[in-house]
Amino acid sequence: MTTPLAAKIAREVGTPALVIDMDRVEHNIARVQVMCDAVGVANRPHIKTHKSPLLAQMQIAAGAKGITCQKLGEAEVMAEAGIDDILISYNLLGDEKMARLGALHERVDMTVAADNEVVIAGLPAAAARAGRPLGVVVECDTGRQRAGVETPGEAIALARAIAASDGLVFKGFMLYPTEDGWPRAQRFFDEALAGIRAHGLDAAMVSTGGSPNLKNLGRLKGATEHRPGTYIYNDRMQVAAGVAGWDDCALTVYSTVVSRAGPERGILDAGSKTLTSDPGGGLDGFGLILDHPEARIAKFAEEHGFLDLSRSNSRPNVGDVVRIVPNHVCVVVNMVDEVVMVRGEEILGVLPVAARGKLK
Amino acid sequence: MTTPLAAKIAREVGTPALVIDMDRVEHNIARVQVMCDAVGVANRPHIKTHKSPLLAQMQIAAGAKGITCQKLGEAEVMAEAGIDDILISYNLLGDEKMARLGALHERVDMTVAADNEVVIAGLPAAAARAGRPLGVVVECDTGRQRAGVETPGEAIALARAIAASDGLVFKGFMLYPTEDGWPRAQRFFDEALAGIRAHGLDAAMVSTGGSPNLKNLGRLKGATEHRPGTYIYNDRMQVAAGVAGWDDCALTVYSTVVSRAGPERGILDAGSKTLTSDPGGGLDGFGLILDHPEARIAKFAEEHGFLDLSRSNSRPNVGDVVRIVPNHVCVVVNMVDEVVMVRGEEILGVLPVAARGKLK
Repeated sequence: MTTPLAAKIAREVGTPALVIDMDRVEHNIARVQVMCDAVGVANRPHIKTHKSPLLAQMQIAAGAKGITCQKLGEAEVMAEAGIDDILISYNLLGDEKMARLGALHERVDMTVAADNEVVIAGLPAAAARAGRPLGVVVECDTGRQRAGVETPGEAIALARAIAASDGLVFKGFMLYPTEDGWPRAQRFFDEALAGIRAHGLDAAMVSTGGSPNLKNLGRLKGATEHRPGTYIYNDRMQVAAGVAGWDDCALTVYSTVVSRAGPERGILDAGSKTLTSDPGGGLDGFGLILDHPEARIAKFAEEHGFLDLSRSNSRPNVGDVVRIVPNHVCVVVNMVDEVVMVRGEEILGVLPVAARGKLK
Repeated sequence: MTTPLAAKIAREVGTPALVIDMDRVEHNIARVQVMCDAVGVANRPHIKTHKSPLLAQMQIAAGAKGITCQKLGEAEVMAEAGIDDILISYNLLGDEKMARLGALHERVDMTVAADNEVVIAGLPAAAARAGRPLGVVVECDTGRQRAGVETPGEAIALARAIAASDGLVFKGFMLYPTEDGWPRAQRFFDEALAGIRAHGLDAAMVSTGGSPNLKNLGRLKGATEHRPGTYIYNDRMQVAAGVAGWDDCALTVYSTVVSRAGPERGILDAGSKTLTSDPGGGLDGFGLILDHPEARIAKFAEEHGFLDLSRSNSRPNVGDVVRIVPNHVCVVVNMVDEVVMVRGEEILGVLPVAARGKLK
């Protein structure tokens, strides 16, 4: 069964297509802003999810303090669109990046993260290029074992190194606690804060992160802002994390069933170059088909999604257009140059994913 | 340890960067053309790997008969660049696609694949739009359980349906045997061929596929052409399949170590938005680091590659630039707008991945 909108998308746009429901987008933006306002934490959405200046501007208009980017290429696109308060939540290294960071900071307020001395040693070149001080937050690892210093002692030492660096301003701490790691994050932060205060420093910016962590919003005493990304679209992972329902999923992938060679299997025109091989932290299959929830997207070729229909009572026919909620929407949006905007049954137009295709 | 070229790439281009060694690219193009010539099978390279008209033109100049594309967006870019013999090895469905296919076939010789009656029923609209007959091959599944009819009887029936359709010409068969499935493919093909001949048809085009199948090149008696894709760059999967060595891997991802918070771990600036989560058919980790082969790229965040260094005697430092052979190069190239061309130690410039970002 193909819905009327799916038929229209296939006819007018073609599949596979990434379709965003603007009513849901607006609802998601508003809902999380209200959540942030309610606990007195500023909202600094991570634009890695949508990569579109229009949506970043909508987030700002709704009350976000600024935005978060993960790389310079994203920040350059957002600055060009007039966003003027940008955190890059990532260790930036090397002459090429310092030149670009400096050029950006000349135009808009940039803040960057650092978790080691090598990064801190490089950043003054960017500040010098900008001709003004650059704010730096110390990234703290409180259990995720990604980037971030592992102990409050290291955080204090880096804060002091930043404060002692020409052109750098120590701005505070950046944390990305695991969903059940907030008590540990609190202990880490309290100790780091007391340590820097003993050296005459203070933390103006204390930033927590993650859409799954919206359920922990306001839980870190002393936090000044939160960096949720995925909430603007949501996906299977957010539903699994309990922070969204299926009706909050604003982006669906429309895909045509192109082959049904065997009775218990089928092929979608969305493969790993559309839905990506992201396992979504251990979800079953590679997306939920709203029209056939018991069908399993079992594996991929680049342009083929392998459907296992063995558990399906109703099975799609060749030519049917189905709607898929992806496992991890951020990596799926990153595959395309544009998404299709709809409202209700109406196709509004296409929205460029302006900051994609930029590796760095 | 950072090689001089890696240091230059980081300084002048920035990381992560996809770097192609043009000496190796040219060697790979020449080597496979010689292999095809030696067994008397035409070469129809699949451009889904590189998506760059310049490289397709090099493949044609070396002797390739035409090219293979997986979707219309790729074929449109290649036709625009003057490539005039294109097979789309995929079931195309729907009004939007028929209009584009017809417009393409008006300008260049298009051939398409079909494995079912629904697809065949749609194709005459494209032929009518082009104002000339459209060639169609029947896709046969000989064990991969992807697209393709499952029996010679179905192949014969579809061949007859194509031949009976206004504006369509039955052109032959398309197969993509598994690496050990060539005897089965031969039996399938022989029976299908005898069947269509009994109905007065013949197969002018019998196309086999796959770079791992280069070891089986010429093995299907009656094959007229082969569709290898990955061979132009190669990757860990091709090395694992025994059809390439590490020195044949023409594309490497240059990535900077940006964090080393723990002694046995590190973070690369290449995450799932660069290297992709493609497991490469069960390889250990998500790429081979040439400079630290005993290090394991254990998992990803979007812009973080998690390094497990527990088995490494020599461990990289923050700021080191490493070279990674990806698991599956085709999906990695698909992530970027451009790759960097080098020859020896010299950076030649950037090459647009012109046909990427097009989902359909």
